[in-house]
Amino acid sequence: MAAKGPIIALDAMGGDNAPGIVVGGAAIARERFPEARFLLFGDPAVLEPLVAKDKLLMEAVEIREAADSISADTKPSQALRNGRDSSMWQALNAVREREADAAVSAGNTGALMAISKFVLRTPIGVDRPAMASIMPTANGESVMLDLGANLECDADNLFQFAILGALFARSTLAIERPSVGLLNVGAEELKGSDAIKGAAQNLRLHEGDLPLSFYGFIEGDDISAGVVDVVVTDGFSGNVALKTAEGVAKLVSEFTRRAFKASPMAALGYLFARPALRRLSTHLDPRKYNGAVFLGLNGIAVKSHGGSDAVGFANAVGVAVDMARHGFLENVRTEFERLQADGLEDKTASL
Amino acid sequence: MAAKGPIIALDAMGGDNAPGIVVGGAAIARERFPEARFLLFGDPAVLEPLVAKDKLLMEAVEIREAADSISADTKPSQALRNGRDSSMWQALNAVREREADAAVSAGNTGALMAISKFVLRTPIGVDRPAMASIMPTANGESVMLDLGANLECDADNLFQFAILGALFARSTLAIERPSVGLLNVGAEELKGSDAIKGAAQNLRLHEGDLPLSFYGFIEGDDISAGVVDVVVTDGFSGNVALKTAEGVAKLVSEFTRRAFKASPMAALGYLFARPALRRLSTHLDPRKYNGAVFLGLNGIAVKSHGGSDAVGFANAVGVAVDMARHGFLENVRTEFERLQADGLEDKTASL
Repeated sequence: MAAKGPIIALDAMGGDNAPGIVVGGAAIARERFPEARFLLFGDPAVLEPLVAKDKLLMEAVEIREAADSISADTKPSQALRNGRDSSMWQALNAVREREADAAVSAGNTGALMAISKFVLRTPIGVDRPAMASIMPTANGESVMLDLGANLECDADNLFQFAILGALFARSTLAIERPSVGLLNVGAEELKGSDAIKGAAQNLRLHEGDLPLSFYGFIEGDDISAGVVDVVVTDGFSGNVALKTAEGVAKLVSEFTRRAFKASPMAALGYLFARPALRRLSTHLDPRKYNGAVFLGLNGIAVKSHGGSDAVGFANAVGVAVDMARHGFLENVRTEFERLQADGLEDKTASL
Repeated sequence: MAAKGPIIALDAMGGDNAPGIVVGGAAIARERFPEARFLLFGDPAVLEPLVAKDKLLMEAVEIREAADSISADTKPSQALRNGRDSSMWQALNAVREREADAAVSAGNTGALMAISKFVLRTPIGVDRPAMASIMPTANGESVMLDLGANLECDADNLFQFAILGALFARSTLAIERPSVGLLNVGAEELKGSDAIKGAAQNLRLHEGDLPLSFYGFIEGDDISAGVVDVVVTDGFSGNVALKTAEGVAKLVSEFTRRAFKASPMAALGYLFARPALRRLSTHLDPRKYNGAVFLGLNGIAVKSHGGSDAVGFANAVGVAVDMARHGFLENVRTEFERLQADGLEDKTASL
């Protein structure tokens, strides 16, 4: 196995439809990124026949035995205690040992978060890793974080998330100096929590030294309007916003589908408009935005939706490839080391 | 002025397009609710000629002079200090003095919240009022609260919001025993804050004594799926969810509009499907869901969107009429008095 391109470690046994969609996703990813190689962690007896069906994939893949796998209902604490032989842990360990440039799993989110934090650790200057994802907006795409890793966040956490999110946007959306907004509420009497106000103050103060431009506060409707490149919020609100957005997109699609079935004329109209509407659903396809990333670790770990298909899984692999190629980890290290050297973190902490 | 139906006090000077949309909204509401009467608070010199254009409206309206009005950028504290002569304050005062059954304003949200809380007070057993609204879902409509009145909430607040929301759903959606869900996050390792867990515990424990059935935790995508009749959350998350939902609905509509313009075939398809699609946009029309309500006060106060038109304002008036007609306030009083008598509030507080 030649190691020219990035090497991606795959948790072959994680997710509702594993290992089928993982092997299928690897096959699609191989076509998209011919230079990438894959370490497939799982049960060789199951994986070998699946991989053997695709000669080209066989050349890009190395199967590594993992005796165990982590189920959807395993608690993070159990996974940490008993999960060392699992395909998930082994995939993350390959990243730690620098055998792989990134790991991708469709398995249990909580376990993946706990194990990746334990195995990969946070770099100096990062207190807590955050979960980020890319979302479609009116004028392109934006990054949002945290999506559920940290229910409650203080000003320092949000400040660090802003930097991590900006560097992620640079790697995946190719924006050199992304704009960052802090999610807040609009009602006039509410000025936001101390954490949000503190983070805003620090971002405003140190914007010149940071790889971002600070937009200020935004509201929920600004997310999909694409007002900023990076939306920063705590894990509770971020999770609520992400899932609410998914739910509403689904609702409107469902209503539109019903509208086209409402009359023969409407059905005829659908026939004419179908190609355009299909392009639209492709554009909004949730599989395109599959791949939540844990930012703020000494390694790249990407979470695919548990119910994803092979196309979705391949997109999650694509996020990992982008981050590996664009030196995301080096950028994070450089940025936070510089902040430490400037004593900025200390100033921030004292606010 | 005969006072058979509900009497609604209107802040004629509040909102971006006041007083035009208020008078226009009253005219539409009069047609819908012929038995309703309106007290119009504001500048008679401006209001009289507007009302005089509509003979039928004139019969249903009484203009009351208010020397002042509260602007969009007035802080709640300023409004409380200096706002006594404002049209907003006077409209709320009419509710307090039992001259009117409800007040509706399209003015400054923060000021309206502060003044209505000061003028109307909370009934015994309610610690804090919450802001609620009705939203469209896959299978009808749901109520969500709090939408921004209380950034942070404890278990008791959420417990009380559940009761208030259920009684509001009974008045406006005609559901005798609404199902209630607590908004939470889905990532497996996160069990929610102490406030959410405490509220869930209390709701589960006392469900039999409450005018609701407790569903348990829901996630963001369950809101528009219509999994429950009432979504309960803190004001920060509720505001984020509501505005995110509005933003995504707008984004998908915009993308659909673009899709129909993408080719001549698609444009032709639009012509055929237009009636069905128009019915759809009517169904999702944000004006239909105009009217956020402050629940948990000794009086009915409804907030119309500041940028609303006359149709939207009339819908906000409709919410006020529904609440007045269905004895919302009496239900709240009865329910919370019973809870006090049962000592349930004390048990709850001790958790």
